[in-house]
Amino acid sequence: MDEEKRKIRRREFFGAGGAMLLGGAANAAFPAANDAPNAGNAPAKWDETCDVVVVGTGFAGLAAAFEARGRGADVLVIDKMPVYGGNSIVNGGDFAAPGNIFQKESGIEDSPDLMLKDMLAAGLNLNHPDLARMVCLHAGEALEWAQTVIGAKFTRLNFHGGHSVKRSVQTVNQSGSELVNKLLTKVLESGVKVETRVKMTRLFAGKDGRIAGMEVRRGYKWPIDASGTPATIKANRAVVLASGGFSRDAALRQAHDPRLAPELESTNHPGATGEALLEACRAGAMSVHMDWIQLGPWTSPDEPGFGYTPQVCERIVGYGLMVDPATGKRFFKETGNRKERADAIIALGHPAVIFGDTYAVESQVEPRGLQKAMETGAVRRFDTLEELAGAYGIPAKPFLEEIARWNGFVDKKKDPDFDCMIFPDARPTAKAPYYAMRLWPRVHHTMGGLLINTQAQVIGLDMKPIPGLYAAGEVAGGIHGAVRLGSVAMADCVIFGRIAGRNAGGNAAISSQ
Amino acid sequence: MDEEKRKIRRREFFGAGGAMLLGGAANAAFPAANDAPNAGNAPAKWDETCDVVVVGTGFAGLAAAFEARGRGADVLVIDKMPVYGGNSIVNGGDFAAPGNIFQKESGIEDSPDLMLKDMLAAGLNLNHPDLARMVCLHAGEALEWAQTVIGAKFTRLNFHGGHSVKRSVQTVNQSGSELVNKLLTKVLESGVKVETRVKMTRLFAGKDGRIAGMEVRRGYKWPIDASGTPATIKANRAVVLASGGFSRDAALRQAHDPRLAPELESTNHPGATGEALLEACRAGAMSVHMDWIQLGPWTSPDEPGFGYTPQVCERIVGYGLMVDPATGKRFFKETGNRKERADAIIALGHPAVIFGDTYAVESQVEPRGLQKAMETGAVRRFDTLEELAGAYGIPAKPFLEEIARWNGFVDKKKDPDFDCMIFPDARPTAKAPYYAMRLWPRVHHTMGGLLINTQAQVIGLDMKPIPGLYAAGEVAGGIHGAVRLGSVAMADCVIFGRIAGRNAGGNAAISSQ
Repeated sequence: MDEEKRKIRRREFFGAGGAMLLGGAANAAFPAANDAPNAGNAPAKWDETCDVVVVGTGFAGLAAAFEARGRGADVLVIDKMPVYGGNSIVNGGDFAAPGNIFQKESGIEDSPDLMLKDMLAAGLNLNHPDLARMVCLHAGEALEWAQTVIGAKFTRLNFHGGHSVKRSVQTVNQSGSELVNKLLTKVLESGVKVETRVKMTRLFAGKDGRIAGMEVRRGYKWPIDASGTPATIKANRAVVLASGGFSRDAALRQAHDPRLAPELESTNHPGATGEALLEACRAGAMSVHMDWIQLGPWTSPDEPGFGYTPQVCERIVGYGLMVDPATGKRFFKETGNRKERADAIIALGHPAVIFGDTYAVESQVEPRGLQKAMETGAVRRFDTLEELAGAYGIPAKPFLEEIARWNGFVDKKKDPDFDCMIFPDARPTAKAPYYAMRLWPRVHHTMGGLLINTQAQVIGLDMKPIPGLYAAGEVAGGIHGAVRLGSVAMADCVIFGRIAGRNAGGNAAISSQ
Repeated sequence: MDEEKRKIRRREFFGAGGAMLLGGAANAAFPAANDAPNAGNAPAKWDETCDVVVVGTGFAGLAAAFEARGRGADVLVIDKMPVYGGNSIVNGGDFAAPGNIFQKESGIEDSPDLMLKDMLAAGLNLNHPDLARMVCLHAGEALEWAQTVIGAKFTRLNFHGGHSVKRSVQTVNQSGSELVNKLLTKVLESGVKVETRVKMTRLFAGKDGRIAGMEVRRGYKWPIDASGTPATIKANRAVVLASGGFSRDAALRQAHDPRLAPELESTNHPGATGEALLEACRAGAMSVHMDWIQLGPWTSPDEPGFGYTPQVCERIVGYGLMVDPATGKRFFKETGNRKERADAIIALGHPAVIFGDTYAVESQVEPRGLQKAMETGAVRRFDTLEELAGAYGIPAKPFLEEIARWNGFVDKKKDPDFDCMIFPDARPTAKAPYYAMRLWPRVHHTMGGLLINTQAQVIGLDMKPIPGLYAAGEVAGGIHGAVRLGSVAMADCVIFGRIAGRNAGGNAAISSQ
């Protein structure tokens, strides 16, 4: 049995993988139906019918809807919240794509292989390699699609900790809303129906085990369970779950990692709770890596939520210094990945301080973002380093010595203390005024979720795909392993969203229910 | 909703905890029934009926059966394998119990608090603290029960890596079979029915959501799915899952940690596969920490399975040296926990070598175990250190220098290189002959499993206990977090097995089915 399971697994994960082309024909042959469906039994009579129901209106859900509609499907997209966009619309708009035009213009060499190496290293090799590979191989194509087909504008090249090179292009407005809004327009123009305040409460399976549809509550008022009116919706072809992660579900995240107490704040929108993920588990889906929950290392205790600090902090890593205010000394690689940095800051027991000089900030940080972060008081400007030290209670002498030491590293483009990446255009921290901010991590991303294969099919507890059920975006697990690198989510969501939508929309098999 | 869930969770995990006494009354008040059972629907007519069905015949299953019977329940214990005992019967027979009589005789100070600190440190604080605390608080009492009520004999005090002190007492025959066999005798004497070759294939729930019974295959021939004859068994009071871990289920373990390829060997009995765990997930149970899968650092590539090496290696840590044969130098703390050591050996890329002199081996290692390990060829004896070096291709000069360096540490009882614990009675490695073995890790223990509360109730995806379903032993998750310390499994299994059995057997609520 082990041997049989192993073969199945190999076929699922190591077969189609790299050779799958988004532009090619959808996979027609689905494995045999799951023989032990655990979803509710489909009702004899449905209130409504469509071909594909997509749950979630972020990058993944809208990309899925667009592609499913392109296959001729009658598509309904639902979102439990009163507004669309989920976390995608508050995301920073960075899209990792190796070999992109901005890299070429800057003479930066990159490749899908290098990105895969970065993803697996950050993921501690817990990533399912073929899922990670899909992201790296198709990121360039997905970015091109976002630009040319959807019309989203990208204007900057950014670095994110844990990547080997600058490889992330950022939307013109430094927000995922640029892509969400344009995707939504395209989706609506194509005839897709998008409804907010509709919550999926139950998945139904037909007698053949295929997911046949769902129960929802229309007019749902988050977070009141009993609000709204129940209705059943038949999905002739498939259901796509693109419902996001569970960073805001304190009970669920603490079941998997008891350290993440309710008191810990989160960067996420309030609806980032795990109901749809759990409902898929009830329907027999396998969840993986649920205990890998990422804290963002770049949030400030001096402003709420995600805030504006990340867009300043993350731009000046590799240009400025992060110090322990208790000692005035650096304590960790500024360009390390999110988990490494968050762990290091938490180990201090108090917020860290990161700062850059005028050159670093003016050359790297988008002015509007800086201004907003200064308006909230999270980022502060100082005329001298002594003044900066005084403001945060940093002992001045060791602090100034540390800056001198760092400046020596910048000159030599090598950091023997912590191996921080020092970019070719970095300069010594010496030009007043200086910009500084405190950092304290917040729960940001849940790496775990529903195990999928490279066709975005949800894998059941029996290791076989659950017919008629797809997942994409943060609700899916296995892609990032222990750590998701910054700016890879946007690529991940678009790629697997599109795959899910194509397969869901093009799936000619009609449920027997 | 978050707030509501959080309150529930707090009550479940942080309420009863430390105050629960094994000798006290069972908790009578169970939370409201799970409103979304996903187990199969109970049949109208059952083939058989009993009060409690226990799945598994290891420490946890037999302890549960004993206690359930003690509450007056009619108990059936099943095991899918042709032999009873699971991994427990091939286990080394070490039982961690802070404050035990052997420690007192040796003047070793210990406490449940110190053990809890060790468990949480090794577990990277992913452990549910109240579950870990239950083990530490009740280990002494559980050991006493095993000795006085069950009649198992314990004769030695051992150290296991990651513990702060020697706190593990070992059975007279250095095997878990001492306890399994005596437990089985007691259980059979008390009128419990124990059947091997009976595999649970499905859990059934009544209309009220309570687990009502199961489908089994009698005369099952492992690993043939279609073997045996199906039968349904009604469990009037409850089902206890004590079915062990999934170290031998290569597909399942690789779904959670893709690095653990089928080619990696395991110390476990061949039936350590995850079917019962997955069936509980199908019935709506929450699994946690599934990606924390432990490799034992003390197995030898020169003998199969668990072998005899662990009983030699683990006794001489803190007395002898572990070196990289490529350099002749030590490379990691010999007394580190299992994960730390396994990771360090794997990082070498080839087997490590550990050795002790005659004093270390004669004073610490049980002679029969040593003899058996020498018969398999896994442990070898050498008259000189030069001969030992030659046998493993170790460069002699740096090797001898390293031993001289180590011997200096032993004299000072302090290892500044790797902070290895050096026991008070350790002596310099200098007395010929010498005993050496190669080490290469094997998959040993799955920390993840079904989330339980301190009453051994299985927690559902809705964070509420699933009525009528208990779990204990390796199938349960959340107790050990990232790393289970050596010799804590036996305490864990006995404690939660007894709790599960008492609650299952004493549960007066009868399923409405």
